[in-house]
Amino acid sequence: MVSIDINCDMGESFGRYKLGNDAEIMKYVSSVNIACGFHAGDPVTMSQTVDLALNAGMKIGAHPGFPDLIGFGRRKMNLSFEEAKANIIYQIGALKAIVESKGGVLHHVKPHGALYNMASSDEMLARALAEAVYEVDDNLVYMGLSGSKMLSTAEQVGLKTAHEVFADRAYTNLGSLVSRRETGAVIHDSEHVVIRVLKMVKEKKVLSVTGEELHIKADTICLHGDTPNSVVLAKAIYEALSRNDIEIKAL
Amino acid sequence: MVSIDINCDMGESFGRYKLGNDAEIMKYVSSVNIACGFHAGDPVTMSQTVDLALNAGMKIGAHPGFPDLIGFGRRKMNLSFEEAKANIIYQIGALKAIVESKGGVLHHVKPHGALYNMASSDEMLARALAEAVYEVDDNLVYMGLSGSKMLSTAEQVGLKTAHEVFADRAYTNLGSLVSRRETGAVIHDSEHVVIRVLKMVKEKKVLSVTGEELHIKADTICLHGDTPNSVVLAKAIYEALSRNDIEIKAL
Amino acid sequence: MVSIDINCDMGESFGRYKLGNDAEIMKYVSSVNIACGFHAGDPVTMSQTVDLALNAGMKIGAHPGFPDLIGFGRRKMNLSFEEAKANIIYQIGALKAIVESKGGVLHHVKPHGALYNMASSDEMLARALAEAVYEVDDNLVYMGLSGSKMLSTAEQVGLKTAHEVFADRAYTNLGSLVSRRETGAVIHDSEHVVIRVLKMVKEKKVLSVTGEELHIKADTICLHGDTPNSVVLAKAIYEALSRNDIEIKAL
Amino acid sequence: MVSIDINCDMGESFGRYKLGNDAEIMKYVSSVNIACGFHAGDPVTMSQTVDLALNAGMKIGAHPGFPDLIGFGRRKMNLSFEEAKANIIYQIGALKAIVESKGGVLHHVKPHGALYNMASSDEMLARALAEAVYEVDDNLVYMGLSGSKMLSTAEQVGLKTAHEVFADRAYTNLGSLVSRRETGAVIHDSEHVVIRVLKMVKEKKVLSVTGEELHIKADTICLHGDTPNSVVLAKAIYEALSRNDIEIKAL
Repeated sequence: MVSIDINCDMGESFGRYKLGNDAEIMKYVSSVNIACGFHAGDPVTMSQTVDLALNAGMKIGAHPGFPDLIGFGRRKMNLSFEEAKANIIYQIGALKAIVESKGGVLHHVKPHGALYNMASSDEMLARALAEAVYEVDDNLVYMGLSGSKMLSTAEQVGLKTAHEVFADRAYTNLGSLVSRRETGAVIHDSEHVVIRVLKMVKEKKVLSVTGEELHIKADTICLHGDTPNSVVLAKAIYEALSRNDIEIKAL
Repeated sequence: MVSIDINCDMGESFGRYKLGNDAEIMKYVSSVNIACGFHAGDPVTMSQTVDLALNAGMKIGAHPGFPDLIGFGRRKMNLSFEEAKANIIYQIGALKAIVESKGGVLHHVKPHGALYNMASSDEMLARALAEAVYEVDDNLVYMGLSGSKMLSTAEQVGLKTAHEVFADRAYTNLGSLVSRRETGAVIHDSEHVVIRVLKMVKEKKVLSVTGEELHIKADTICLHGDTPNSVVLAKAIYEALSRNDIEIKAL
Repeated sequence: MVSIDINCDMGESFGRYKLGNDAEIMKYVSSVNIACGFHAGDPVTMSQTVDLALNAGMKIGAHPGFPDLIGFGRRKMNLSFEEAKANIIYQIGALKAIVESKGGVLHHVKPHGALYNMASSDEMLARALAEAVYEVDDNLVYMGLSGSKMLSTAEQVGLKTAHEVFADRAYTNLGSLVSRRETGAVIHDSEHVVIRVLKMVKEKKVLSVTGEELHIKADTICLHGDTPNSVVLAKAIYEALSRNDIEIKAL
Repeated sequence: MVSIDINCDMGESFGRYKLGNDAEIMKYVSSVNIACGFHAGDPVTMSQTVDLALNAGMKIGAHPGFPDLIGFGRRKMNLSFEEAKANIIYQIGALKAIVESKGGVLHHVKPHGALYNMASSDEMLARALAEAVYEVDDNLVYMGLSGSKMLSTAEQVGLKTAHEVFADRAYTNLGSLVSRRETGAVIHDSEHVVIRVLKMVKEKKVLSVTGEELHIKADTICLHGDTPNSVVLAKAIYEALSRNDIEIKAL
């Protein structure tokens, strides 16, 4: 039976501020990436989200970001190699201890926001991230942009990787994501998204923004949990995959 | 041969701000407690301090504090049980990952400042701390105020404890520390401090502020690293212990 | 014509995190208290909220809190007199400059959360707050708990004060608020709340939690903007006051 | 009598962390730029530094920076126009209120670190800064890199400007500062620095790093207060200017 991992960012509340619908989304995904307190999340939120994820049988990953709560980790920052590496180890360690304190196992790491985007083309940052993950625990799976430098660097360092694709984002002909600043970058129509997911999983292909067929490696599909219709979309994908006898299953 | 552990708080710099003389102090102590980024320290400072400590053969502990950088963790805060526990697990985990990423082993935990002081008498907080340490790793040694509730609680939870005494602090007749707000709370004269250290180690006794002899349990002696003459004092204690054939040795 | 001020806390979003429905609530109140970045709010949120308030013709106040974003300013903190005073001046100044940069005038100050609660009985803190407000601008109106020490202290310092009452909170026989930890502390039924508002404005009285009639001084009524039904409640009060020929009007 | 302003950044301590020797340096300068809590400084430090400056008869300026305490405001950040403007207004306002609460007057604004450097060539950022200063108070003097875009933009907006030169920094033939990453960027020899200061003030010229004479506009000379020999250097410049009958005097 064909299977695919679906992952979603979670635990992005902060203190009084609530974001996302984590418990509901967990019904439809197999892996969760939990914010570690730098771009979002706080110790109590992390702890509660880990509880939810363990109960729901999720594979749990760390979701480290830039130290920029006010910008939600979406603003570019210039960290040195040493700063980037230490910041990532710190965040992974914090979440790992929370997971292990509850008897769980940390499974993967997926960088967040601007850190993710910058690392897909910045070799220094890609290496800082990969070394950080490897040195904390070389069994961790490293989740990143399918076909990007962040994954090839991680593989050189010795990490297992998971190539991530985006069901609701437009792709350029070169296989990179169309910038969020351009119109059409995000695909909102759930039927359209479902069709793309099926094509990605069954044919290993995606249509670019100009209509070209691109080959992609899809180990895991990213769902966004903080959009208004995220639960509806998650359910639609879940049901379409079921109808097509594709199992949603972690790596 | 008689031996005693001497511990010192370290890694309390933050970004551009430098505090203490960690490399120099490490010549005279056996255990270090490294700040975890909440009351002091940052990921790069933590990483550099762990490097120093591993090179110097120190036993490395986590030194978690209240989330209060501006108050250096010395202001009382009212955290709930859940908040306290999650905050401690987070901080220990961050440092543990840094230590392990460099091939080291985290050895102990000692709370900082107001968290330490409050936990020595507040049972709820004492329990949150003890459970946090135990659930992260039940091999960690828990370092706290000799004879206090924080240690008896930790022992109930199942942790190994280290009873800490202070060479440069005056004691009341009840065995608690004289508040820093009272005159005579801190003993600055190094000869006087050395005499107290020898009495603590050889006789298991300390003179209270009114001159009574108190029995104390002394597994480890705390040195303060951020005072102006800390290196001089550390060296004086080191040499006095050597002359008396007492080894400085971690637990 | 009888009139009453209705005030509401606003601008409590932070970066990516949205809280409250400020634009909608402004239709039904006369004064707004805008968070200043310590317990909630950030420079952009403050700027956007001031724009909204100026457009809606609101009287604008600063809403300073403890420096505790993660606790939303609701956790007790022990600040010294000097710390408390400097923290309040800083926050008022930040908002004042934003208001003035847009051609507006800062009208009042109302402390937030634990700072408000502690200052209603802690004389040192009450004085630090009152002096801070007075020294920034002695024309500012100081809004605080009706009949409390925070207002008598402010009056001694020379400030104009506004006695605040709470339509949706139960009162003890002594005229203080029933603690949120006790059941019945918050009144959720909007009809009940409306009846209390009318009694407060028309008769200067409120029924205590045991049914005694208490005299109160009510210059301004507080509405909570971050509760689920806040807009519905605001509208109900607005309409009831209109029907009773009571004008909603700032001080 | 010829006169020149000498300015120095101050108030860059934070909580327990002390930086610089503000009281000593104030003997030799005429203007101080006080950090506003984002890259350095905190409300109490700001208040204490304003007290010192008022006692010493200094002209007081705000020294706003990026919201990056851990990087001391020296790391590039990508703020939008709206974010940059709101962040600057916030910081100026906070310091302005502290100065006014003590009966003083805020005189000028000088951006800090990466914000200063980026604004000298980034027109969007230059405009955000200039509008922020102007809208808070159009009497404020705007201090920036001599001959740069940040000053021409500020002049277009309607601000008075002060062209700043650096006595201890090497200049390229184009009149920009040699990057700190290149050797020779900072001139440490105090005799050499003194000669440059005199040439700048008396001849309005500076020798570039390759020995060319450049014309410069020098309204104010920057001293760095956080270097080890800053007091010695400040005193040497002060004495050399006195011997040459040049008065140190604010704008």
